[in-house]
Formats: sequence, structure tokens, C-alpha cells
Amino acid sequence: MAFLLLSAACMFQSCKSAYPKTGRASLEKDFMYQYSIIDALMAGVFDGDLTIGQLKNKGDFGIGTFNRVDGELMMNAGLVYRTKFDGSVEEVSDEDSTSAAFIKFFSADTVIILNDKNLTYEKIQQYLSEKLNPNEIYALRIKGRFTTMTTRAEKPAKPPYTSLPEHLKTNQTVFDLKNSEGICNGFLLPPYLARTNVPGFHMHYLANDHKAGGHIFSFTTDSVTIEIDKAKGFTIENNTNAEFKKVNLKPDRGAELKKIE
Amino acid sequence: MAFLLLSAACMFQSCKSAYPKTGRASLEKDFMYQYSIIDALMAGVFDGDLTIGQLKNKGDFGIGTFNRVDGELMMNAGLVYRTKFDGSVEEVSDEDSTSAAFIKFFSADTVIILNDKNLTYEKIQQYLSEKLNPNEIYALRIKGRFTTMTTRAEKPAKPPYTSLPEHLKTNQTVFDLKNSEGICNGFLLPPYLARTNVPGFHMHYLANDHKAGGHIFSFTTDSVTIEIDKAKGFTIENNTNAEFKKVNLKPDRGAELKKIE
Repeated sequence: MAFLLLSAACMFQSCKSAYPKTGRASLEKDFMYQYSIIDALMAGVFDGDLTIGQLKNKGDFGIGTFNRVDGELMMNAGLVYRTKFDGSVEEVSDEDSTSAAFIKFFSADTVIILNDKNLTYEKIQQYLSEKLNPNEIYALRIKGRFTTMTTRAEKPAKPPYTSLPEHLKTNQTVFDLKNSEGICNGFLLPPYLARTNVPGFHMHYLANDHKAGGHIFSFTTDSVTIEIDKAKGFTIENNTNAEFKKVNLKPDRGAELKKIE
Repeated sequence: MAFLLLSAACMFQSCKSAYPKTGRASLEKDFMYQYSIIDALMAGVFDGDLTIGQLKNKGDFGIGTFNRVDGELMMNAGLVYRTKFDGSVEEVSDEDSTSAAFIKFFSADTVIILNDKNLTYEKIQQYLSEKLNPNEIYALRIKGRFTTMTTRAEKPAKPPYTSLPEHLKTNQTVFDLKNSEGICNGFLLPPYLARTNVPGFHMHYLANDHKAGGHIFSFTTDSVTIEIDKAKGFTIENNTNAEFKKVNLKPDRGAELKKIE
């Protein structure tokens, strides 16, 4: 692959957010924040007590889901969007709630432009895995025009809830988008975040026209801009929903998780 | 066992810290904070860049170790103590540094007094495991007079470092204390904190006369006061030492960890 790399120095000015990385307030903003843990969601804790309004105090960028796993959550530039199981996208009100969300105040440290006619999600993952440190936490935003983009979103569950893998078996819609322009938001996380989050890459899509989105399975493209924001650490706020206290979090659900990602 | 339980309501006033659990500032104080992760320490990342002075901004209570794993760290009421491999205890200056520490601003929600002539660390663990929720994060302080108290502390390592289990094999001193009065500080953590911390109980000891301490293996007692402080979540700040970036954090070190606890 022939990659064109632009250094952080020459692109940094154009992508700096409103939160400079100096001083005490910005140190706190440079931590990833998550509400609940992936293993609770996997085990069927589909409701949480954190409103979208409260979530917006913790970051302006990220991914997650909603109560009842009612679609895929994407946060970008401080706004929250839901991709529904029918493929439509809506902006979500502050009164809605989330059962799991992974977010950050996004401020790119590095910007990379890749041009190659045969780029895929897999090749970009391989490239970034070699370039970035395996033990660090990265927020990633990938902008581009995607020749193909395969995503999913799910129908909301009805109580009593089953596990997430069981729910997805019959309630997941897969979307095969063509020539879609948009952004992929998400994270590249280290192995020690197994059980609490998704080790490796986890990204959601939002088309620029807000007419498509969802959890990304794969894509192809010939040019992308990748913004990378390394976090100094992360904060997990435990789900206060009563179901969180009841669920069995002892089993390692890593193998199950890989199957649905 | 005949346990005498005093409810939280009747004991709460006597143990409240200076940080009430209401309002935004105290919400942040009700999170556990940790510097680095247990798997990095296990793998031999024995140096960190966080000073004890900086650590004190993140909590007033907790446990950990120092750079070069030079002894066992205990924080209580905002002061930091080191139990050295020779069994002595010293207060640690703000200029010293830690390679791993697990702390909190301690404010007990519940206080339990247990009286029984055959109490052991194991029995108390069993009792608390049944009483507390397995999915939550708890800071614990156990005060009492201990008929026996078995602890350890280790000699500082010299670079190039080996793994923690390897280092402990030949550099750990075990102390068998008799009739010691003091406090046990530490945490009861859920299974999803494997890799980042120690699931289950992890406590360090400090004698009231500051003449003994260390990482607790076992104890016997006939009366203890247990203060319990449930955290709303936790924050991990990644170790910025260069070795953290180099170490292999893919293996699950859970089995190795159990052997040295």
C-alpha cells in the first residue's frame, strides 16, 4: 500500500478542539469516560440511569447504545445520534438515557491521511496497530467517502431481557451502504480493558447527510483522514440500575464478544 | 460465628470524613483512583512518574507500592507510609514516586463491628463477600487488635527488572506479628477489574505504633471494626514511564497474581 502520511505538526492546527491539553481542567478532559461496562451489556443489563444530557458533561465524542439497546449511539461534536434498526438516524434528546457509552472530549494529537485505491477497514486497523502503542488508549475519528460501508443496528429489546448476543441473533439489521460520505468514531483499546470494554477497534458510523449509520463491520475506501487522540487514562462510572447488581460478571465473555463485533 | 452488627445509621456520624457524598465535587471524590495497572507491575514495570505529592491529590486512603517496588505502600488519613523489607515503617515524602497505587477519598457508608473469638481474615472475607454486592467496588478499613498478623514486604529491585513474581521469589520478607493493634486498608473489587487490579480482597496493614506493616496474607483476631465505602466507579491513569509502552500486556496474568497475593 502506498500511504501518504502528513505529520501531526502540519495538520494539528486544523483539528484542535476547544480543549487545549494543558492545565488541570484539560487533564481531566483528556481521560476517556465510560458509563457501565461491556460485560454488563453482554449479560443483558440493557437499562441505565445516565441521561444523554448528563453524558454530554463527560465528553463530546464517542459511541454506545441506549436503554433497551434501542439502536447504535454516535456522539460527534457534542451531539448525540441514534441509528435505528430501520436504518434511519435521529438526533437524541437530552432526556433519553444510555445503558452503555464510551466517550471523550476529542482533541486530535495526530492526523494521518491515507490514499490508496484498495483501502479497507481491516487494512487501516493493521496500519494503525503497527503505528500506535498496544498498551495505550486511543480515540479515533476516520473521515472519508466509503465505496462500501457495512453496519448494523438493532431493535429495542422488551423485558425480561436476554443476553446481547441472543438479542442480536433475531433483532439486528445489517446495512450495505454504497458511496457514502461520513465519519467513523470510536476507540482502539488495549488488552487490559477486556471485560470493561472492547479490546482492539470499535467504531460506529454516521453519514454526513445523517441518513445512515450504525456499528461498523467493514468498509472500503480510497482515501481517509484519520484523527487520533491518545487518552491519559479512563474513568468508569458504574451503572446504578438494579439489574447491574444482579448479573453474573464472573464469566469471561471475550469470545462471545468477538462474535458480535 | 456470632456476629454483632451495628447498622450504618447508628455509626455513620462517627466515621464521616470531611467529604460529604453530595454535590459535584464529592461525586468525583467518590471514585476510586489508580495509577498504572496491576498487570504492568506484574510484568516488571517497576517505575512510574507519579509523585506521592500528586497521589495525595487523588485520595487520602489506599494501598500500592513505590518505584523499584521498594516496599509496601499504605495511605491513611492523607499520609503515606512505606513498610520496608526489613519490617520497619517510615512516612514517605511527597517527592518519592509510585509505580502503582490504588486509592480513594475514604468516607464510610457502613460500619460493622464483628466480635468472635475465632475470627480470621478468611472468615471476614467470606462474611463480607456474602454481605456486599459482587459487582461493586468497595474500599475497606478494618481496625482491631490482631492476635496474629502475617504480612510481607519486598526489597527494592535493581534494573534491569524481572517480573514481580520472579522478584518476590528471592526478595520478599514475611513478618509474623503477634498481638498487634492497627488498621488494614484496601479494596474488595469485582471480577471485571482483573488485569487492571486485583479481583477480590487486597489489603495492607499498618500497626498503630507505626512499627510494623505490609501486604496482608492472613490474620486472626477476636474483634474488628470494619468501615465500608462503596465507590461510584473508578479512574485509571496510565503509567507514563517508557517501560509501560514496551511491556506485553496481552497475557492473562490472573493465575500468577493469585499465587503472590
